[in-house]
Amino acid sequence: MTKVYLAGPDVFLPDPVAWLARKQAICAGLGLTGVSPLDDLAHEPAAWAALPLWRRIAVRNEAHIRGCVAVIANLTPFRGPSADVGTVYEVGFARGIGLRVFGYGTVAAPFLDRTVASLAGQGRQAPDGSWWDADGLLIEQFGLSDNLMIEAAIVASGSGVVRQDADRWHDLSVFERCAQQAARVLAGAGGPPP
Amino acid sequence: MTKVYLAGPDVFLPDPVAWLARKQAICAGLGLTGVSPLDDLAHEPAAWAALPLWRRIAVRNEAHIRGCVAVIANLTPFRGPSADVGTVYEVGFARGIGLRVFGYGTVAAPFLDRTVASLAGQGRQAPDGSWWDADGLLIEQFGLSDNLMIEAAIVASGSGVVRQDADRWHDLSVFERCAQQAARVLAGAGGPPP
Repeated sequence: MTKVYLAGPDVFLPDPVAWLARKQAICAGLGLTGVSPLDDLAHEPAAWAALPLWRRIAVRNEAHIRGCVAVIANLTPFRGPSADVGTVYEVGFARGIGLRVFGYGTVAAPFLDRTVASLAGQGRQAPDGSWWDADGLLIEQFGLSDNLMIEAAIVASGSGVVRQDADRWHDLSVFERCAQQAARVLAGAGGPPP
Repeated sequence: MTKVYLAGPDVFLPDPVAWLARKQAICAGLGLTGVSPLDDLAHEPAAWAALPLWRRIAVRNEAHIRGCVAVIANLTPFRGPSADVGTVYEVGFARGIGLRVFGYGTVAAPFLDRTVASLAGQGRQAPDGSWWDADGLLIEQFGLSDNLMIEAAIVASGSGVVRQDADRWHDLSVFERCAQQAARVLAGAGGPPP
């Protein structure tokens, strides 16, 4: 089976194991093995037992990603206009080791709109149409889902960010559409991403 | 010279070239070549000219990172309690390709305090001391600077996150302390990070 790592802030839910099991069931229906960050590792180096818990979680997650051919990332805006940074770290890491990356978000509004809204009236639009925050920093305006590094990795992987309004901690239909895209791309993919 | 990539939302400043030139001057004083995302690439593949600007920026940034031995990341909270996601993507990417990662932030308060503050009274502390946001999602509580994936990569690289209150878009003293750490670690490092 084709192993895909399920990245996302979903691990912070009150019952993350049950939630990730639902994602894993959707993956199984598509011929994919969804690897949860909460799964046991097949072979955990003995030295890791001495690490503090937070470092052990990090090296486990990286090891899980290394065992997969792709990542499906929950890029739903998290405590701000952008995706969860832990998830984004894993997207960058996956791209660095040559995996394909897929992503979805349960908010349809584009990054620019979300960012301007998050500034609660403190944003400023210049005569040329560009947007600036209260610190005088430019807001990205490429019509994307989030910061360009993330979307570029996903587009280079053969797909696009799946984005649709949904009840983010209850509805898995947006995840399912993204997993379907991943299954299609991975079925047709002979090698690493371009 | 030892090349280090200067990751950060600093590129969104009104005059990012001048600002990054200041960082590059600090690096030069420490025997490091600071590579700015805004530097020209030595050899840009001709095919990239056909890409939309945002994708071209992304592949350029990744190429710049590939040409370095380490990343110094500005992890200052950006439009929310966490670091800029574009920067965090680059930290993960760098770690994926085996580089060392260093990081700093110009807010001294730890991640938990910043996150709880950002929830503006909507956070909830359970009797066991754990914190939960308004969606019922757990807030990380490891006493770290940001999400554990980021800090774990930096600690594994031989250093820690440098964090101190400073005027974030004017004062480069926190960056300088981080660059000094990077220079020390890189001078003593014979190979890739453990």
